[in-house]
Amino acid sequence: MESLLIENGEIVTALDQFHADIFIENGSIQAIGADLSISADRKIDAQGHYIFPGAIDAHVHLELPVMGTVSADDFETGTAAGMAGGTTTIIDFVTPDRNQSLLEALRERKKVAEKAVSDYALHMAVTWFGPQTAKEMERCVRVEGIPSFKTFLAYKETIGIGDQELIAVMKTAKALEAMVTSHCENGDLIPELQKQLIDAGKTAPKYHAQSRPSFIEGEGTHKAITFAKATGVPLYIVHVTCQEAVESLIKARTSGQTVYGETCPQYLLLDDRVYEKPDFQSAAYVMSPPIRSKGHQATLWGALKAGQIQTVATDHCPFQLHGQKDKGKDDFRKIPNGAAGIENRLALMYTYGVLEEKLTLKQFVEVNSTRPAQLFGMYPKKGAICVGADADLVIWNPDTENTISAKTCHHRCDTSIFEGFRTKGAPTWVIANGKVQWDEGNLKVEKGAGRYIPRAPGSSI
Amino acid sequence: MESLLIENGEIVTALDQFHADIFIENGSIQAIGADLSISADRKIDAQGHYIFPGAIDAHVHLELPVMGTVSADDFETGTAAGMAGGTTTIIDFVTPDRNQSLLEALRERKKVAEKAVSDYALHMAVTWFGPQTAKEMERCVRVEGIPSFKTFLAYKETIGIGDQELIAVMKTAKALEAMVTSHCENGDLIPELQKQLIDAGKTAPKYHAQSRPSFIEGEGTHKAITFAKATGVPLYIVHVTCQEAVESLIKARTSGQTVYGETCPQYLLLDDRVYEKPDFQSAAYVMSPPIRSKGHQATLWGALKAGQIQTVATDHCPFQLHGQKDKGKDDFRKIPNGAAGIENRLALMYTYGVLEEKLTLKQFVEVNSTRPAQLFGMYPKKGAICVGADADLVIWNPDTENTISAKTCHHRCDTSIFEGFRTKGAPTWVIANGKVQWDEGNLKVEKGAGRYIPRAPGSSI
Amino acid sequence: MESLLIENGEIVTALDQFHADIFIENGSIQAIGADLSISADRKIDAQGHYIFPGAIDAHVHLELPVMGTVSADDFETGTAAGMAGGTTTIIDFVTPDRNQSLLEALRERKKVAEKAVSDYALHMAVTWFGPQTAKEMERCVRVEGIPSFKTFLAYKETIGIGDQELIAVMKTAKALEAMVTSHCENGDLIPELQKQLIDAGKTAPKYHAQSRPSFIEGEGTHKAITFAKATGVPLYIVHVTCQEAVESLIKARTSGQTVYGETCPQYLLLDDRVYEKPDFQSAAYVMSPPIRSKGHQATLWGALKAGQIQTVATDHCPFQLHGQKDKGKDDFRKIPNGAAGIENRLALMYTYGVLEEKLTLKQFVEVNSTRPAQLFGMYPKKGAICVGADADLVIWNPDTENTISAKTCHHRCDTSIFEGFRTKGAPTWVIANGKVQWDEGNLKVEKGAGRYIPRAPGSSI
Amino acid sequence: MESLLIENGEIVTALDQFHADIFIENGSIQAIGADLSISADRKIDAQGHYIFPGAIDAHVHLELPVMGTVSADDFETGTAAGMAGGTTTIIDFVTPDRNQSLLEALRERKKVAEKAVSDYALHMAVTWFGPQTAKEMERCVRVEGIPSFKTFLAYKETIGIGDQELIAVMKTAKALEAMVTSHCENGDLIPELQKQLIDAGKTAPKYHAQSRPSFIEGEGTHKAITFAKATGVPLYIVHVTCQEAVESLIKARTSGQTVYGETCPQYLLLDDRVYEKPDFQSAAYVMSPPIRSKGHQATLWGALKAGQIQTVATDHCPFQLHGQKDKGKDDFRKIPNGAAGIENRLALMYTYGVLEEKLTLKQFVEVNSTRPAQLFGMYPKKGAICVGADADLVIWNPDTENTISAKTCHHRCDTSIFEGFRTKGAPTWVIANGKVQWDEGNLKVEKGAGRYIPRAPGSSI
Repeated sequence: MESLLIENGEIVTALDQFHADIFIENGSIQAIGADLSISADRKIDAQGHYIFPGAIDAHVHLELPVMGTVSADDFETGTAAGMAGGTTTIIDFVTPDRNQSLLEALRERKKVAEKAVSDYALHMAVTWFGPQTAKEMERCVRVEGIPSFKTFLAYKETIGIGDQELIAVMKTAKALEAMVTSHCENGDLIPELQKQLIDAGKTAPKYHAQSRPSFIEGEGTHKAITFAKATGVPLYIVHVTCQEAVESLIKARTSGQTVYGETCPQYLLLDDRVYEKPDFQSAAYVMSPPIRSKGHQATLWGALKAGQIQTVATDHCPFQLHGQKDKGKDDFRKIPNGAAGIENRLALMYTYGVLEEKLTLKQFVEVNSTRPAQLFGMYPKKGAICVGADADLVIWNPDTENTISAKTCHHRCDTSIFEGFRTKGAPTWVIANGKVQWDEGNLKVEKGAGRYIPRAPGSSI
Repeated sequence: MESLLIENGEIVTALDQFHADIFIENGSIQAIGADLSISADRKIDAQGHYIFPGAIDAHVHLELPVMGTVSADDFETGTAAGMAGGTTTIIDFVTPDRNQSLLEALRERKKVAEKAVSDYALHMAVTWFGPQTAKEMERCVRVEGIPSFKTFLAYKETIGIGDQELIAVMKTAKALEAMVTSHCENGDLIPELQKQLIDAGKTAPKYHAQSRPSFIEGEGTHKAITFAKATGVPLYIVHVTCQEAVESLIKARTSGQTVYGETCPQYLLLDDRVYEKPDFQSAAYVMSPPIRSKGHQATLWGALKAGQIQTVATDHCPFQLHGQKDKGKDDFRKIPNGAAGIENRLALMYTYGVLEEKLTLKQFVEVNSTRPAQLFGMYPKKGAICVGADADLVIWNPDTENTISAKTCHHRCDTSIFEGFRTKGAPTWVIANGKVQWDEGNLKVEKGAGRYIPRAPGSSI
Repeated sequence: MESLLIENGEIVTALDQFHADIFIENGSIQAIGADLSISADRKIDAQGHYIFPGAIDAHVHLELPVMGTVSADDFETGTAAGMAGGTTTIIDFVTPDRNQSLLEALRERKKVAEKAVSDYALHMAVTWFGPQTAKEMERCVRVEGIPSFKTFLAYKETIGIGDQELIAVMKTAKALEAMVTSHCENGDLIPELQKQLIDAGKTAPKYHAQSRPSFIEGEGTHKAITFAKATGVPLYIVHVTCQEAVESLIKARTSGQTVYGETCPQYLLLDDRVYEKPDFQSAAYVMSPPIRSKGHQATLWGALKAGQIQTVATDHCPFQLHGQKDKGKDDFRKIPNGAAGIENRLALMYTYGVLEEKLTLKQFVEVNSTRPAQLFGMYPKKGAICVGADADLVIWNPDTENTISAKTCHHRCDTSIFEGFRTKGAPTWVIANGKVQWDEGNLKVEKGAGRYIPRAPGSSI
Repeated sequence: MESLLIENGEIVTALDQFHADIFIENGSIQAIGADLSISADRKIDAQGHYIFPGAIDAHVHLELPVMGTVSADDFETGTAAGMAGGTTTIIDFVTPDRNQSLLEALRERKKVAEKAVSDYALHMAVTWFGPQTAKEMERCVRVEGIPSFKTFLAYKETIGIGDQELIAVMKTAKALEAMVTSHCENGDLIPELQKQLIDAGKTAPKYHAQSRPSFIEGEGTHKAITFAKATGVPLYIVHVTCQEAVESLIKARTSGQTVYGETCPQYLLLDDRVYEKPDFQSAAYVMSPPIRSKGHQATLWGALKAGQIQTVATDHCPFQLHGQKDKGKDDFRKIPNGAAGIENRLALMYTYGVLEEKLTLKQFVEVNSTRPAQLFGMYPKKGAICVGADADLVIWNPDTENTISAKTCHHRCDTSIFEGFRTKGAPTWVIANGKVQWDEGNLKVEKGAGRYIPRAPGSSI
């Protein structure tokens, strides 16, 4: 494997910021130092650039079968888009059918994932709790390197679980020193509100948002936190979008409970006026939870800066507006939920977070890379710049200006929810496992080069 | 029917305080005025006394079958004890079995209740939701005079209902302009915690309290409020005991939601050190929710004073320590839940509320009489002192001193959770439907004299 | 004095709602009853009307000298405008100069007030605390019928007081069982922010609002409440406008502290987009605190409905846009602060409160009449409909529709901040001291007919 | 200077935990690596030990003249005690007299500090704001290496400042990219409460606590935060002790404001029952703010774990019980405020924080070392273990057990507020500037060896 020397850059970690050279060989960082005088197969002059640890996206759904279709990016295209934006590792999900063995579902999912161009890991969703589930969860943790279990409070008719199942998952995870993650929208109230709207002839995409008001996410969050408190398990709330949820999170954390929150760029940057777009364009923004009214954004940014929300992920799950989303033309309930974002996260968070002083540069690294690695058992192989770490690096030009467009993004989707957003700052080079994957605008990824990353339990910040 | 003139007293209502005479005939108030010169069959000189509208206890369980036994007071003894303490109207419950018709259960319950010495009304508990339930609820409101429906989030194995049933009850009640009342402890977490304790050999009464921590009531309260918000129904939270529940209540009320709270003297005055009593005496305090740690009391008093909790009831439901409570000698789960309080409410609230300046005298009338009457559709027949109102009056000597003891109370119970509490203030006379029922220490009640009080929907403060 | 019989109306008090006739003689209510068969000099058929106790405006500034000019309404025109809208009693202020005797200022102010057409009372502002102030405050309470003292945390350069003076006022008031009222904007931060804006060339009216952000009112409210807690005095916060203040208020009340809040229609109904009006029209909205952004309104309405804000007043203090407000054409600091509202309060609160179900009809009476009377020592002479009360009544047609306009209002002001607001509901007759003052659209007031109302200390709800 | 090799230890930083050797020469860390094969003058075998960056105590008062006496530890004895406990750098204060030049006071203070055995820095207290103050503050930041300014809201009669002075300090600091730190107790309410107590004959030490209730700290904290928001300056709240203050802090931080909090072991571990000790022993606990009631501790620990309080310092300021504290035998106001703690911080935080799972090991390093260094401009020279950092290290044996006693502590004080506390974990070696200062129980410090550490502005986490 070729060696690589990165010179003259300014390294930024979650804790430090300093100028040093980095020497890479055999896929990992071999040395960090001022003026390393080491010969290498390739040298990169990172003058004027920041060097971040490769970003980790802890919440993506590639090739996800849903409502009779499949999310538009497969493991190859999705991870390639991530690579172009600075994301060198993703965590996707295994989502067993009801009554399906977790381990069987895992085997199937790993096959699907093999074509990934970047490293990937998997969360295990527990969508039902049968007599074998506890044992299978144990095997996930002990053998398969999966110490995080996803639970859905919503979607009760398909993958959501009931309260007693939730308790069972949490107890089992607690005993295994694993993390439970939860999608916290109340799964009984939403169908009720959907029915009220549809019965009133309210079928357009914007009613999707009205069927899932923020107080319903608030209730789900409060409940999941309470259940985690009763069972003692560490909890990670995915895609926090609203004040009610943040308040519950802060109250629990400040009481000493071990609970974490994740948010996404779309909740930080978009508001519910997107649902007023004409001609079914608003369907592009149909996701769950939905985009909230403007007042919620300041709370999310504040919680992120204050360290009360720990990570930023994308919930990347694109569907084509034409051919997929339009299945719900006459009934918002039939619009596949989700949107693309994996390629845009770093540029958006840098532009609208760091440059607007809502995050420091070190916090930017923390929320996008270090904390996901720590919380999900990959640190310091991932999420760090230190000797021995995987050579996953983003070499960032703070001056590059772009405008986001579906046309120029690498993911497979005919629309972008961030269409027209101006960004400042972009990777000039992205390095994964010691190889330059994004090279001054050229994507040099290789199908199947990504490795499955087994993860360790007992993680914490 | 004999006429009655009450002279020289100081009338106190929820709004006013003034000196006037009251003339009563045919069971209702005929005139209020300064120096009424009307001849009457009997005159009472109320000099030095306050006159309150008869107290209403909106939460009692007489002759309640539970765990193979029956609560110790029947409708005669329970209402008689109430009368001795100034309570002239109670609201008890119809609690159908699963799969039993609400109306059939109502017929049965009304028979049991016939022997009451005071007026009584009934809440309908909805313990399951079948195809006929909505229609039966409609008949309750429209024909039977029952516009309030009780739901249990706890006790899932017997009378508690699931989330979808709760939504169904709330939607139906909303359409009928009825009130939903909820017992808000999470019914899935409690069995889990009970099991953990029992498995650890923790069987004594005090573990009852540990199996039902305040955060579990907090979760139930938050959930019931959210469900009420989604369905638009007015909600009344019974026996609020803790900070978490009060916080949810206040937040909802201040957002404009129509939601009310009730607390009880035992939660205002006792703290969880009662569970440290030796020799199984602590079993007397086994009730649900349990007595909380001391810090919660100030919050309850504050919320009551600020008008955020609207009513005080007793949840009167006594069981003999010897012969009933001791069924759970080896397993706290088998101790029948409940305690006596109907006779003591006014004296306790006067002594520890009014005299300690935690409530004004008008607020004392409000929480014990006027608001229960208004919220449950009996105002101004009950809960008011005005021409045309039922002649239910408490003539109160503010100087009478007593010490509470099971031995001197009129309810049927071998223990009192308020044993030894000193009180100041007591009724000299209690009048119900124009008749003197408590007459300077003599109880002159008549079995079956109480009437069933049908109630009106659409009530509000 | 002529007698008056009001027949067929529906009486609404803070507690009750019922049909009855009212007989009035010698300026007070002599009888209330069904079908009173009493002959009277005049009969009013109130069929289809509500009858409310006359409204009380506890916060008005008539003929107030400020910044070298005087507020546009004098005691005659201001009280006449009030009468036309259903306000039969006002409470204005005595505002001594620094170093002026409180009692001397009171004498002067009472002379100015003599021409009032409605009853009036006075709060005493304490604008400095000298060696005689405690004694003068005692005389105000004991002899002059003034048991409420206003303090300004803002306006430090003129009438605002320092922290040690505030403590002195509170301690003195506490000993006298009097109420302290506070204008709660921090008086040190505002000049600082004003200076920053002016230095940056930001002189237009809208910068007035930016110089007084809500967090500065939040700080003042928190501080006044803390000082009241330390000294034990009951506190009444005037013109509460924002979430921060409401949160402090609720927290204090729920802790058991005796603290009350007042808001005004302009804060419930207008939002800060008014400051974007062109051509200096936005100067009409220059008042302190300023109109807030839209998010605050829901909090104010919610707190009002939940009983956490107790009263609605107007802070009526009009200045002509042409000739007065335009003194600040080049410097927002020189625009006289204030606007007219006394005539519009009831119609606005009825239309946007009662009809939009943000308040019940009884709460409407409570916030506009009963609670101001109770809190400021005039109940039940004022604020009640009962035998013996002053015959101050509003006979309200719920169907009358109007559009508010400066042109048709009776106050002296060339603009209305509510211009164009549609209202439903208006008084057909307004009766004060037993005389019909507003008679189906005709204002029949008499200069000087209003009486000074001495008030009692020790008041409470 | 001798070289030093530390082998086989487990390095713990705020972000990482790993095994490596450390090579030290010329007072700084030269290399970190697995199995460094470097010869050195001395080798330490750190097998079984953690290696932390030297602790920083950002809040100590050595040789502080107060109330006619001087705090008992001088710069030599105080820093020596710190060294024995693992604290290798302190930040003390310059406290000018009113009207004294800041720079003159600085010169005087630096002379007093010269005898320190450990490195030291200084905060500048601004106790008055005169015409030269802004210029002197600029010189402090630009020339003297002092980018942090202390303000006292309490102690108005001596070193406390008024609101307009506070605004001036904050504006000046903002322009200089400096930090303002505040002691947040309201300075007007405390003398009032003191007077009430003394007038009532309540002179014993416990009344000190009653004269400074938590709501008064809450008010001061809320105010300082509001002033910082209005002026835009970063704010650091010293010695946060109570729920009210924590709530304000969290609310501000979550709104995006840059504000930090510090707490101390005494507030985390002691409760107000200490004031019930007999025989004037309670005077040892007289400090400001006082020790709070037990309920506050959980909030402080929770906020620390959740990252909402950033640092732990000691406010070390001992006075002898006999000869100093007893000046206030008859008047608690005359008891010099303060206690010793510098030597005990790490052992207490390790035992009661890390071992009780209230903090992770990395958080332990963060709050005691890394964040103080970052916030006050000394990172990464201090607070880090990296090549180039000062060789300040604590080599920690997690198994050493001790019992704290005044008799065995190195500070000068006849009592310890932590007397009898059992601790687990202690330094075996403490290294400062590359020299072993604490060597297996032997203190090898040198008077005057400590250096003054100039600090950089613009610091942040």
